[in-house]
Amino acid sequence: MKKKFTGLWPAMVTPFDSTGKPSLPALEQLVELFVKQGLDGIYLTGSTGQWPLLTVAERIAIMECVIGSAKGRLPVMAHVGAVTTSDAVLLAKEAARLGADAVSSVAPIYYPHSEAVVFEHYRQIGKATDLPFYAYHLSIVNPAAIGAKAYAEKLMTIPNLAGMKITDVNLYLFGLIQTGTQHKLELFSGADEVMCQAVLCGAIGAIGTFYNLWGPSCKSARQAMVDGKVDVAGRFMLKFQTAISRVIESGSVWSFIRAAMQQKYQIDIGVPRAPLGLADKAWNEDHVREIVNLVDQALTAE
Amino acid sequence: MKKKFTGLWPAMVTPFDSTGKPSLPALEQLVELFVKQGLDGIYLTGSTGQWPLLTVAERIAIMECVIGSAKGRLPVMAHVGAVTTSDAVLLAKEAARLGADAVSSVAPIYYPHSEAVVFEHYRQIGKATDLPFYAYHLSIVNPAAIGAKAYAEKLMTIPNLAGMKITDVNLYLFGLIQTGTQHKLELFSGADEVMCQAVLCGAIGAIGTFYNLWGPSCKSARQAMVDGKVDVAGRFMLKFQTAISRVIESGSVWSFIRAAMQQKYQIDIGVPRAPLGLADKAWNEDHVREIVNLVDQALTAE
Amino acid sequence: MKKKFTGLWPAMVTPFDSTGKPSLPALEQLVELFVKQGLDGIYLTGSTGQWPLLTVAERIAIMECVIGSAKGRLPVMAHVGAVTTSDAVLLAKEAARLGADAVSSVAPIYYPHSEAVVFEHYRQIGKATDLPFYAYHLSIVNPAAIGAKAYAEKLMTIPNLAGMKITDVNLYLFGLIQTGTQHKLELFSGADEVMCQAVLCGAIGAIGTFYNLWGPSCKSARQAMVDGKVDVAGRFMLKFQTAISRVIESGSVWSFIRAAMQQKYQIDIGVPRAPLGLADKAWNEDHVREIVNLVDQALTAE
Amino acid sequence: MKKKFTGLWPAMVTPFDSTGKPSLPALEQLVELFVKQGLDGIYLTGSTGQWPLLTVAERIAIMECVIGSAKGRLPVMAHVGAVTTSDAVLLAKEAARLGADAVSSVAPIYYPHSEAVVFEHYRQIGKATDLPFYAYHLSIVNPAAIGAKAYAEKLMTIPNLAGMKITDVNLYLFGLIQTGTQHKLELFSGADEVMCQAVLCGAIGAIGTFYNLWGPSCKSARQAMVDGKVDVAGRFMLKFQTAISRVIESGSVWSFIRAAMQQKYQIDIGVPRAPLGLADKAWNEDHVREIVNLVDQALTAE
Repeated sequence: MKKKFTGLWPAMVTPFDSTGKPSLPALEQLVELFVKQGLDGIYLTGSTGQWPLLTVAERIAIMECVIGSAKGRLPVMAHVGAVTTSDAVLLAKEAARLGADAVSSVAPIYYPHSEAVVFEHYRQIGKATDLPFYAYHLSIVNPAAIGAKAYAEKLMTIPNLAGMKITDVNLYLFGLIQTGTQHKLELFSGADEVMCQAVLCGAIGAIGTFYNLWGPSCKSARQAMVDGKVDVAGRFMLKFQTAISRVIESGSVWSFIRAAMQQKYQIDIGVPRAPLGLADKAWNEDHVREIVNLVDQALTAE
Repeated sequence: MKKKFTGLWPAMVTPFDSTGKPSLPALEQLVELFVKQGLDGIYLTGSTGQWPLLTVAERIAIMECVIGSAKGRLPVMAHVGAVTTSDAVLLAKEAARLGADAVSSVAPIYYPHSEAVVFEHYRQIGKATDLPFYAYHLSIVNPAAIGAKAYAEKLMTIPNLAGMKITDVNLYLFGLIQTGTQHKLELFSGADEVMCQAVLCGAIGAIGTFYNLWGPSCKSARQAMVDGKVDVAGRFMLKFQTAISRVIESGSVWSFIRAAMQQKYQIDIGVPRAPLGLADKAWNEDHVREIVNLVDQALTAE
Repeated sequence: MKKKFTGLWPAMVTPFDSTGKPSLPALEQLVELFVKQGLDGIYLTGSTGQWPLLTVAERIAIMECVIGSAKGRLPVMAHVGAVTTSDAVLLAKEAARLGADAVSSVAPIYYPHSEAVVFEHYRQIGKATDLPFYAYHLSIVNPAAIGAKAYAEKLMTIPNLAGMKITDVNLYLFGLIQTGTQHKLELFSGADEVMCQAVLCGAIGAIGTFYNLWGPSCKSARQAMVDGKVDVAGRFMLKFQTAISRVIESGSVWSFIRAAMQQKYQIDIGVPRAPLGLADKAWNEDHVREIVNLVDQALTAE
Repeated sequence: MKKKFTGLWPAMVTPFDSTGKPSLPALEQLVELFVKQGLDGIYLTGSTGQWPLLTVAERIAIMECVIGSAKGRLPVMAHVGAVTTSDAVLLAKEAARLGADAVSSVAPIYYPHSEAVVFEHYRQIGKATDLPFYAYHLSIVNPAAIGAKAYAEKLMTIPNLAGMKITDVNLYLFGLIQTGTQHKLELFSGADEVMCQAVLCGAIGAIGTFYNLWGPSCKSARQAMVDGKVDVAGRFMLKFQTAISRVIESGSVWSFIRAAMQQKYQIDIGVPRAPLGLADKAWNEDHVREIVNLVDQALTAE
């Protein structure tokens, strides 16, 4: 039987309509797309989903829409991280009420919080529901510095902690978390650009921005890696890294994703909330196609 | 005639009542305190004022209360920085409507925004009102790297830009901004711990957390510096730095400020919004008194 | 036919005798060991080989001894990086005269050199001989920032550049260098802790400290990765990362390597030059054995 | 009576002759210049003096020449830091034998040494002679993190420690070292660009590169600061910071210093050892004059 929390999960974009509100119809289109593509789950309102720019009410409406549309065809993990602990707890309770399969959270933001504050914040989110909790790796805790055993003991004080989302290209760190917690946690890779490399650290799955666009290709590449087709996975990763760098170097990430989703899937995700995208330039259709194809043809290219 | 934007400005704390709401009575007490102490202005709802944990409505209510209480006895600079550009613009317009003397804003947060995005975000805030605008120094723009002239030209594209709040211990950077912009901007020092040192870089004033507590002492020390009493200012800064380090090293900054404001002024600023203060420990009254006195007696000690 | 520059290369330790001089007999023992183990090459007097603490004359004597002992049974790449450009050039010429198969160099050290200085330093080393040159990746040049094409063009101005030693856990960077230079360079992974992960970025081989001790195990693991045995490689890497972290966290890296080389191979590499090892503690024999076995049994463990 | 270790000390450049050897005649010219200018001491073979590119024998010859030329007219502090602990100890003993007034040392370089290694390295240098020892502030020890008392106790285990050279723009750190060690150490500022600001942290003097060129102006500015002429000091520092930034941004620091020393004092300091200066461009005489004058006229300009 397939495990529930595994495989390739898009960190779903939040589409906006022409009035600047989250577009529920486009959300439904995205859910249908991911179901049809056979992806493994949906990660909701993370950084890609622009959580810091959404109101609590909007986030609840998005959860309701997506969970309702998915109808159990895909598991949904709701990111409930928020600026205040109380909002995060409230969102976690709403996620549970609405039928999410898991909750996840970034560490508290903006202020330079101490380790003690981060763990307490996580504990309050963890205990808010009975759902499995996938915390972000907190960059302020270095398992190499405090020792694997001490780190594991700290993590295990978080109620319902089931795993982590490790968004870092440092795979030495990833491995130390894996072994430091004695393989008791389910670790997702959150750094798209080293998705296949993370499999060697025991990553159970990958959650990321670019799987909105290249879900099937990335899923195939990840499976190739798991199946031992190292040549295929390596060739793919080099093309995927190149595509990612072209998008990021352009300085117009949001307009690229919009143009590519439109071109490839005829789904309009609209304009992000400012300041996101404030300086984005329009993309040439051919340039978009070239980058999209670079990845999609990477599995078959020799 | 005294310049309006100069001198010592507390980055006002936001007091909360026992139900967790911003306490308007305590805000009024603080305004009266700062007026009575002869401080030079009030900086509203900055990081010390917990802006990221307040709703837009709460921030407007705080502006209304403080500006109304100050009744022109002290100028008020309202920090209107927000996660979305539209909230920042809205808050700027409200600040103008309510009679604030100036607006200020941090650079956009959370995402790794490009320089182009930051400047556009600032431009939209600047042009939202006719008030003078004091932008935070944006750590992503290094005047040494891009050259003083180029930097100044970029800054001068921000409508109504009157000055900056430079919150950085790097006073080489401070000086390069000062000369790079040809002394056309009014620069406030935002790093309490090098308040007097910044005078040598042409800082026109200081905005900071610890002036809520030690306003009169810090104002006197700053004035001593301006007046050329370098021995006095130096002796003070070493004590002030020591006190700051003891508070920060304790890991219980918020509970210290609360205990000290209570002990010294009998004003209860309550408990900050979680996760702020989540891991704070209670302070011993004598320990609080010792740290408070360390600074307050620094000017007279030899 | 097997390529010359590929596979697993220990960054050879420099053994010292009881008088503090480099021990030529121990160097010969190490060469015989690596030949017998079937490793793929020897990297001489890199950081592991303590180049900054050796005189030029000592480095030449070590090259002569090792190249003479290897007698072509293993290729030898001589690190010729030095504080002055002239020493690096002299060492490169000596390496060529003595029959080294390639030269390699770190970027200039200590001062914050500009990119232009680093490239010119590299050019002078590259053109000093006809040997293939493997430069260190220079952390000051970010291929993502300057663009893949510009980066490749710069690199291609270095005479005789054949490849690079990329000592960084950031495998996104590794991939961008690989594709940015259009696969024209032979890239070695210099970060032991992500050795197998780097295969997915097209790493042609691995050069590192811990291959002095765990050469055969690491060679087998790397081969397993190349052969598509992802499970084996992943299991190995987690154990290898754990062992590395235990050694590094101990703060006594040099005394561990000495104790382990003695215990496992009966080769005494002596005490490093101070300040290296100045604060090292002695290791318990059982603790050394446990860490050594953790890696050596990782391939067979399930 | 004037204290010996106080005031303005150039970190003396090492001049080279046309054959690339340290030029003893030019060294003597520099000593006479600094004596005539009434500077307060000479700091020998630091980073500005290119210690990492000099042999031990050359460093001894330079010490002998400079101490002999100074004939007690100026105190001489010899930087004896080296890659190996034994070279540093040997240089310290030579400094004592040759009549230096103090020794100084950077922390060990290149490898990421632990705090324990750094302290032991310093202890061995400190106990090598009876001279007062001025250690560099070691950036790996954060007095804020480990606490002022613990930090002071560690420092006090270094034999003959008389003071430190703190080369960091972070004056909060400077102040914490000052108070953490209970004012028992004599602290020199090593960051030219905040020379006057450091007076407020109790800096007893300043050691730096640019005092080779602008010694009298900087001495006057520093004295103005000590005397409470804050306006003068502040105006000077802004000009001085601007001049420093122009030189550093040019990427041709070494050729600027050479051209300026030649133009202003008719002393030829020659070409630095490569890779230093490898990418330096020639300076236009008028441009050099403009920058030189920017600082020299800063005290009189209004």
